[in-house]
Amino acid sequence: MNFKISKRVFFNALSIVSRAISANSPLPWLSGVKIEIKKGELILIGSDSDISIQKVIQSNPDEYVFEVKQEGSIVIEAKYILEIVRKIDADEITIEVVDGNLTKISGHSAEFIINGMKSSEYPQIDFTMPSKQFEIKADMLLKIITQTSFATSDKETRPVLTGVNFKSDGKVLECVATDSFRLAKKTIQLGVDNQFNITIPAKTLSEVAKTIEKDLDIVVCVSDKKAQFWIDNTVIQTRLIDGLYPETSRLIPSEFLYELTIDSRDILNAIDRASFIKSEGISIIKLSANANEIIISSKSSEVGSSLEKIKPIHYKGNPLEISFSGRYVFDAVRVLSGSVIKIEFSGEMKPFIIRNAEDDTVLQLILPVRTYS
Amino acid sequence: MNFKISKRVFFNALSIVSRAISANSPLPWLSGVKIEIKKGELILIGSDSDISIQKVIQSNPDEYVFEVKQEGSIVIEAKYILEIVRKIDADEITIEVVDGNLTKISGHSAEFIINGMKSSEYPQIDFTMPSKQFEIKADMLLKIITQTSFATSDKETRPVLTGVNFKSDGKVLECVATDSFRLAKKTIQLGVDNQFNITIPAKTLSEVAKTIEKDLDIVVCVSDKKAQFWIDNTVIQTRLIDGLYPETSRLIPSEFLYELTIDSRDILNAIDRASFIKSEGISIIKLSANANEIIISSKSSEVGSSLEKIKPIHYKGNPLEISFSGRYVFDAVRVLSGSVIKIEFSGEMKPFIIRNAEDDTVLQLILPVRTYS
Repeated sequence: MNFKISKRVFFNALSIVSRAISANSPLPWLSGVKIEIKKGELILIGSDSDISIQKVIQSNPDEYVFEVKQEGSIVIEAKYILEIVRKIDADEITIEVVDGNLTKISGHSAEFIINGMKSSEYPQIDFTMPSKQFEIKADMLLKIITQTSFATSDKETRPVLTGVNFKSDGKVLECVATDSFRLAKKTIQLGVDNQFNITIPAKTLSEVAKTIEKDLDIVVCVSDKKAQFWIDNTVIQTRLIDGLYPETSRLIPSEFLYELTIDSRDILNAIDRASFIKSEGISIIKLSANANEIIISSKSSEVGSSLEKIKPIHYKGNPLEISFSGRYVFDAVRVLSGSVIKIEFSGEMKPFIIRNAEDDTVLQLILPVRTYS
Repeated sequence: MNFKISKRVFFNALSIVSRAISANSPLPWLSGVKIEIKKGELILIGSDSDISIQKVIQSNPDEYVFEVKQEGSIVIEAKYILEIVRKIDADEITIEVVDGNLTKISGHSAEFIINGMKSSEYPQIDFTMPSKQFEIKADMLLKIITQTSFATSDKETRPVLTGVNFKSDGKVLECVATDSFRLAKKTIQLGVDNQFNITIPAKTLSEVAKTIEKDLDIVVCVSDKKAQFWIDNTVIQTRLIDGLYPETSRLIPSEFLYELTIDSRDILNAIDRASFIKSEGISIIKLSANANEIIISSKSSEVGSSLEKIKPIHYKGNPLEISFSGRYVFDAVRVLSGSVIKIEFSGEMKPFIIRNAEDDTVLQLILPVRTYS
């Protein structure tokens, strides 16, 4: 293998595929990037066997340098190749397998000779596209991920809750995440009919979010075994989480007794301040509402107490007192990213719903907390 | 105690004094900031008993709000008061001891009531000024600290080497740091005659460096027991390190057989790149010099090897090969902060000296490393 490539293009591609690579992989090959030149293309692969990322670079002389002298392949420790390419102070970098697995990486007046690994031992990863496919705009996919995946569970006791459920039955796509104390749901229209019900690990979605560039069309392909996100010449492939995702639609109340409309910055700031008072590491916030004012308060025998008044834009219903996890409500309001939010309550021990007043594709549901003070 | 103060001024002062506070202090009081109003002044103190920082704020109606309603004092957990003052969204903040140690911190529509600690239990810290004093410009003190303290030892086996030695005998101040593998020495002229020989912990100097603002005159006061840095209304006081500092002047060679003048950016970048090749976590760099070129190389059986050529500005002497710790030379060249540096060698196993070609007040000495390859 022997090729020359623009440093900028190569470094960018290496950074993307190495996102899938875990430093402490039990398989030594998986700590490396597979670099392959085949049919005039450069194919980079990084994987931790749960997530695999492949990036293909083709010749494009108008945009960058990429010249192949000899085809072949090698696996190089991700942290070495990234560090070397980052540090070489040259516009173009030459990569050449010089002897067995010894690989020369050179640019300008500097050269490195690095011990690589034989690529024939690297696991075969099948990037074939499953037949169920839909197209989605990058910023919409990003919104789905930001507005749901924070609500997944980080506990492995119910593995299925560590992912976001993507379910389509017709042209509608419903994306749901819950850790059983809160739930986030985003509903969008797809251009095509589909039938699937899969759960994608939150960890993969976070890598997808980091790799997405705005204004692109992303092709999502799903089967019972895997999901793929095709972003230009990059594909992120992930295993799915086994197990039936719980039926959540009956958990979402449809009738409410109290309705609070409020400036989202006001409530975010007030909760942020009040959350500072923690009991055993958790901040429980009390919201006391009436038509004239909203009081956000918190209390801990160790630290002290806080109290803050905010003016609601609108409040409908009798006075109400309800307590909840400050972090849960903060997270939910933040990802709605609207200037005005609407909170609908059914009672002090019933789940409540938070919505962006101007966007009905997304809802956040939160269970209140019982307090004894 | 009851006073009102500009948030900006109060937060800034709290940030400075809390630098001295250690989160895991064995004395509960030392995890707090002592806040005292006395004779119309606000006195803030933070301390971990090694370092103590005091900041005094006086009334200055043209610049900020500071109004005293009642004198008194309290100690408040540093992390609480900092967090609260940072988060309160108001220009002015009121602090009031409301009941026993309960302290109300309020601004705009938010108020916090925090459990404080009785200030009478806070250790008495004596900020009396010792009589040996000299004045120094902030940027000169900063240079002394940056150019020496990185070379102190981080091992407690010889405690005296964990500090920078400040020695004056007449109008000259010599500042020396060494970890016994390298040595940094800065020599400056003082305006006044002095006689002292003290060793200041590197940790304190790092706090001083963070607190210094440019263009100020700093008064340094020293005794056998402590050193003080007076920066405007802030004083940083530190204990000294006991024990005799080693006599280092005889370690510095005065005759050399080889002299290399080189662009400092060239050698920094080359060492940085080569340092990436580590053996057991340490990067040993080989420098091969002759009149035409300098070769910087490194090697590790695990990772591989590197080689880079740079053009010297000037080289005097026979060809030379010498090996050294990449980090030591990198650190030394970096803090010299000159565009051209001069390295003087006496032989491949003799200590060598690095200087800024345009500043003879500072020198860096480094011991080479023996290699067997």
